Amino acid sequence: MKKLINNPGDIVNELVEGFLFVNKGKVKKIDNLNVVARIEAPVKGQVGIVIGGGAGHEPLFLEYIGRNMADVIVHGNIFAAPPPKAILEGIKSANGDAGVILLYNNYSGDVFNFDIAQDLARKEGILVDTVLINDDVSSAPLEFMDDRRGTTADHIVIKIAGAAAQSGMDFKSIKKLLKKAVYNSRSLGVCLSACSLPETGIATFTLEEGKMEFGMGLHGEAGIKRVDLMTADQTVKVILDLLMEDLPFKKGDEVIAVVNGYGSTTRMEMFIVIRGINFYLKEKGITVYSAEVGEFCTSQEMAGVSITLIKLDDEIKKYYDISADSPGYKKFQ
Amino acid sequence: MKKLINNPGDIVNELVEGFLFVNKGKVKKIDNLNVVARIEAPVKGQVGIVIGGGAGHEPLFLEYIGRNMADVIVHGNIFAAPPPKAILEGIKSANGDAGVILLYNNYSGDVFNFDIAQDLARKEGILVDTVLINDDVSSAPLEFMDDRRGTTADHIVIKIAGAAAQSGMDFKSIKKLLKKAVYNSRSLGVCLSACSLPETGIATFTLEEGKMEFGMGLHGEAGIKRVDLMTADQTVKVILDLLMEDLPFKKGDEVIAVVNGYGSTTRMEMFIVIRGINFYLKEKGITVYSAEVGEFCTSQEMAGVSITLIKLDDEIKKYYDISADSPGYKKFQ
Repeated sequence: MKKLINNPGDIVNELVEGFLFVNKGKVKKIDNLNVVARIEAPVKGQVGIVIGGGAGHEPLFLEYIGRNMADVIVHGNIFAAPPPKAILEGIKSANGDAGVILLYNNYSGDVFNFDIAQDLARKEGILVDTVLINDDVSSAPLEFMDDRRGTTADHIVIKIAGAAAQSGMDFKSIKKLLKKAVYNSRSLGVCLSACSLPETGIATFTLEEGKMEFGMGLHGEAGIKRVDLMTADQTVKVILDLLMEDLPFKKGDEVIAVVNGYGSTTRMEMFIVIRGINFYLKEKGITVYSAEVGEFCTSQEMAGVSITLIKLDDEIKKYYDISADSPGYKKFQ
Repeated sequence: MKKLINNPGDIVNELVEGFLFVNKGKVKKIDNLNVVARIEAPVKGQVGIVIGGGAGHEPLFLEYIGRNMADVIVHGNIFAAPPPKAILEGIKSANGDAGVILLYNNYSGDVFNFDIAQDLARKEGILVDTVLINDDVSSAPLEFMDDRRGTTADHIVIKIAGAAAQSGMDFKSIKKLLKKAVYNSRSLGVCLSACSLPETGIATFTLEEGKMEFGMGLHGEAGIKRVDLMTADQTVKVILDLLMEDLPFKKGDEVIAVVNGYGSTTRMEMFIVIRGINFYLKEKGITVYSAEVGEFCTSQEMAGVSITLIKLDDEIKKYYDISADSPGYKKFQ
């Protein structure tokens, strides 16, 4: 796969430079470690929200800092966790002396580096704690839920975190709210083609023409089943059958439904998929409070979609409803 | 290329159904002809803005109706102009007795059908006129500018049209403003891979691995040159050299710069491209008032980008700056 880049070794730096240029006046680079903060951060007396992870999934994470979104993003190399030193700078940049929450996807490399940075920050007297996102039901069975990867619930959870923090909610309450929002989020993806590493152009896995794979990871991790290409409606049924029983979602529940495109999927396909979701959930007596389609968390040029369901209660809904303005996600109230 | 669809013959209807579901309460379907209006349309005393064209380029045109965007979208089949009957319904649905402007891309099929509808509407006593978008510099030389195709300036021109109309600007003044905005817009694209027709999965053209083509159309129309893959910075130079001399853009000018992804291009690449544009324009003494990157006008899973420059004056800037809320384009003031 050919990419429009310059020197492969410069991809992440140049991507961040372009991002800073487009969002001039709204974001600021903190140092030479690819730490970027919204222009207002840190806000004295407000809990700081730090997000981050490997690059290559844009708009996640880079583009989710802003008004009622995260304060600081710490950016690693392509598909690689950011170093502890950068994360520590990120924590300091978000610290308004009301505590800092690290909110990121559950991958061992990220957890290892974020935990080191968290320890270092605590030694410096900063109140800091972690909420891991682990919404991918395919990556471990329910009884090992803590081992599950984070995936496409991210932008909604970040939105709720940012809205709560910028509304003045305290450290403990935000942690509790985010743990609930993560617990209520379940996702599963399907791909129709592989993704490649942009530095080399080499695919991370192979998928024969006419096949699709359920449950693959964002970096080409193996999925749970490979089958002949199904229709959009059949695909929706396979995914929602799994998501429904996992929480479980029940008749009378109210949810946000997200269709995420992984890269080369058209919005045309995403709308056809969400149409199928509507019919499925209606039949199950579940109310879709809000439906979102778009590329929220991508995996380079991978074709396919993930579906995320997030069960709502009044508290989650309140912070979801607040308007948000970040480069990668905007919502009017 | 495999797509996540149901019956290929149902693509457009199901896409519109999904769109209506996601945007419930904000948009309404007018009839069975895939005409969709923002919920407030028509607004008495305001000029109506009708956009439209073939499907398959989402978010263009379908998702650009809303607050300070267009009033009505008339949707054709994939890559095919909508029928006159649907366009006539669209005109009526946008008619608040202050005139209706048809704003769409310059393709012969569209012009033919929109003109028939315009004549029919005039016979019914509706004040209606047309502004064609023709920003693609590759599709005809400057002396035959009227033959040029419309392409990726669309969402900006639609935004300006909607903001002006919803601010109460009169029919004649909007027409003048839009003609100026279109004249000031120049675009050129480059692709790294072809696109396919979603009904059949068959590519509309072929492009060998390691090659790129400048100036191809949104439906696979032949470009102006095919070359070995260049770096992002080299590509930016080829495109901007052509755009600069075409208007021409001059030292001291202020512009909006848009990088549009055609489908499978990553935002990573778009940011690297806009970074190159920044350096190029800075050296030429041109000020980038606003830079936008995203998928605004796609061509299925085609890889590549287009660059659009729009020269600003105070009037264009005023209507560009106003906030906008449509499913496919949101802007906070």
